[in-house]
Amino acid sequence: MRIAVDGMGGDHSPREIVKGCIDALTDLSGNIFLIGDKELIESELEKYTYDHSKISMVHTTDVITNDDQPVKAIRTKKNSSIVVGMNMLKNKEIDVFISAGNTGALMTGALLILGRIPGIDRPALTAVYPNPAIKKACLLLDVGANAECKANNFLEFGIMGSIYCEKVLNIEQPRVGLVNIGTEAGKGTPIIKNAYKKLEKANLNFIGNVEARELQNGVADVIVCDGFVGNVILKLSEGVALSFVHLIKNKLKESLVAKIGALILYGKLKDLKKELDYSEYGGAPILGVKGAVVKMHGSSEAKAVKNAILKAIPYVQNNVVDMIHDEVVSLQNNHSEEVNDE
Amino acid sequence: MRIAVDGMGGDHSPREIVKGCIDALTDLSGNIFLIGDKELIESELEKYTYDHSKISMVHTTDVITNDDQPVKAIRTKKNSSIVVGMNMLKNKEIDVFISAGNTGALMTGALLILGRIPGIDRPALTAVYPNPAIKKACLLLDVGANAECKANNFLEFGIMGSIYCEKVLNIEQPRVGLVNIGTEAGKGTPIIKNAYKKLEKANLNFIGNVEARELQNGVADVIVCDGFVGNVILKLSEGVALSFVHLIKNKLKESLVAKIGALILYGKLKDLKKELDYSEYGGAPILGVKGAVVKMHGSSEAKAVKNAILKAIPYVQNNVVDMIHDEVVSLQNNHSEEVNDE
Repeated sequence: MRIAVDGMGGDHSPREIVKGCIDALTDLSGNIFLIGDKELIESELEKYTYDHSKISMVHTTDVITNDDQPVKAIRTKKNSSIVVGMNMLKNKEIDVFISAGNTGALMTGALLILGRIPGIDRPALTAVYPNPAIKKACLLLDVGANAECKANNFLEFGIMGSIYCEKVLNIEQPRVGLVNIGTEAGKGTPIIKNAYKKLEKANLNFIGNVEARELQNGVADVIVCDGFVGNVILKLSEGVALSFVHLIKNKLKESLVAKIGALILYGKLKDLKKELDYSEYGGAPILGVKGAVVKMHGSSEAKAVKNAILKAIPYVQNNVVDMIHDEVVSLQNNHSEEVNDE
Repeated sequence: MRIAVDGMGGDHSPREIVKGCIDALTDLSGNIFLIGDKELIESELEKYTYDHSKISMVHTTDVITNDDQPVKAIRTKKNSSIVVGMNMLKNKEIDVFISAGNTGALMTGALLILGRIPGIDRPALTAVYPNPAIKKACLLLDVGANAECKANNFLEFGIMGSIYCEKVLNIEQPRVGLVNIGTEAGKGTPIIKNAYKKLEKANLNFIGNVEARELQNGVADVIVCDGFVGNVILKLSEGVALSFVHLIKNKLKESLVAKIGALILYGKLKDLKKELDYSEYGGAPILGVKGAVVKMHGSSEAKAVKNAILKAIPYVQNNVVDMIHDEVVSLQNNHSEEVNDE
C-alpha cells in the first residue's frame, strides 16, 4: 500500500506530521510518501531511526496556507503538496492522500483534480464525531462542503457514510440517523421531510430522525445533515467542551479544598479534554470523489497523524471508493427499473 | 402589574410552579393569576403562608399535554390554561402570560389568539442561552418556531432580539451576530448571505457572522439563526453538557485518589450543571406577537419560575411589545422612503 501524507499542512507541520509517520511505520506494511519541502521534512526525518526504504520524499515548492482562497490556490499553486498529492492519486501512483492542510483547498482539489464518482451529486466532507460517554465514534456528514442540500444529497450522504462506517470503522449495519428538530417523521423543512422519505426507502439501516441532544449518546453510527448544520454541530461541540473545561478550572480555584481536589484531578481533566477532541480519532474521509482522501484536523499532532494513517489501511483495502461507485450505480439501475415499472 | 402563570404546564406542575410564584411574591409589587385546576393548585397554595390578596386563581378544566398536537389542542381545548391565558392577555385582563407547557401549543396559541404584530412576518421562539464562562447570557432566536426562514425573517429576529436584550436583559447596544459557517461576509447559503446584507444595513449593532465555536464565549448578545439551526444549537449544548458531566463522573471513579477528589468536588460539579442549565435563567419570550408571552423550560423548578416572573416585570414595564411594533413601523416607513427615493 502506498500512503501519501501532506508534509506541509496543519498547525504543527512538518514536525508532528513526520513524527506521526515514523510512529505509524511499526504497524504498517506499506510505504509512506511524504509530500512537501524536501529540506524542511528531511531535517525532521533525521531526528529518527527508521527503515529508510519505507518513507520516500516528494519535493514541492509551493505552499497553500489557510488564508489562501481554495479555487485560486488549486489553480495557481500547481507545485503545492495538495495539488501534487491529488495528481499522484489520480494517476494511481499512490492509494490514499492524507492532509491536515486548508480544508477548502483539499475539498476543491479533490473535486477539480479527482472529480466526483459518477452518480454522486455532492461529495461530502465528513468528521469522525466522538461519543466519549460510550467510547465510540460515529461519522457525521456533511460538515461544511455543502451548506445547502437537496433531499437527494442526504441520501448520498447516508449511503457513503454507511459504507465507510461498515468497512473502516467496523460497524455492522450502521444505524443512519437524520438530524432534525424532532424525532417524529413529519418534522422539519420540506427538504428534510423529503430526505427522510428517500432515506427510509433506501437499502440502509435508517433509524429515522435524531435530535441534537442525543448526538453524543451514540444514538446513530452515521449522522446525516446538510453542511451548514454539520458545521454548527462540529464547532459547537468543540466550543461547549472548551467552555466546560474552562469552567471546571475556575470552579476548582474557588476554595482551598477545591484546589486540592483540582490538583488530584488535573491529569484526569487532561485525559477528558483529549477524549472530547475529535482529532484524537485521526482523520475523516472526503467521500464521493474518485480517490481515497483523508482530512485531518488542522491542529493534528503525531498521535492523530498516526491514527489517520492506520485508519487509511482498511479505507484502501476494502475499496471503499469503488464500493460507493457500485452502490450508486445499482441505485440508479433500481431507480430506472422503478421508473420503467410505472 | 398583572402576571398570569400557567399552573398546569411543565414536568413539575403544579407543585414547583406554585412554589415559584410564592417565592417571587417578596420581590413583586404586582399580582399573580394562577391559571389551572383550582383544586390541584389550591392544595399546593395551602402549604404556604402568603398575602392572599396577591394571588388569584383562574379555574380551568381542560389540560394540554406535551403529546397534544398544537393546532388541534388550541382549537379544541378552549378551557385549558394556555387558551384561557392567551385570551386574558388579548383582552388586557393580564399584562403577561408565563407557561412551562407544550411549546408548540404555546406558540400556536400566541399566533392564533394574539396574532402577529403588523409588519412581523414570523414571530420567534427565543431562548436565553447561558455563557457560563463569562457569567452572562445572550438571547438566541429563532429556536424552532420557523425551521425555514427568508432573509427578512433574520432581520426581524435581529430587531426583536435587540429590543428585548436592551430593555429586559439590560444590555446597552446589544451586539447582534448571525450564526454562519465562517466569519467572512461571503459565507453561507444565498439566504444567509442576503440576511447578512439586511442586518448590516439595519439600525442595529450588527457584528457580522459568528461561528458556533464562539457562542459560549459571549461573542454576541443577540444570536440570530433559523429555527432549525437554533433548535440544534439549543439541544446540542444541552447534550454536550450532560455527556460532559457524565464523563467527569466516570473519570472520577477510575482510581481511589480520583474518588477522593470527586468527593471534594461533588458540590462544585452540581453548581456547574446548574450554571449550564438554561432553565436557571428563567423564561424566554415569544417575540413578534401582540402580547407579552414567556416560555419556560418544561423541566422548570421553583427557582426558574421565580426568575421568569421577575424578568417579566421589565418586559411589561418597558412596553417591549409596543417598541417592537414601533420599530417595525419606522422600518417600513424608511423602506418606503427609500423606495420613493429611487
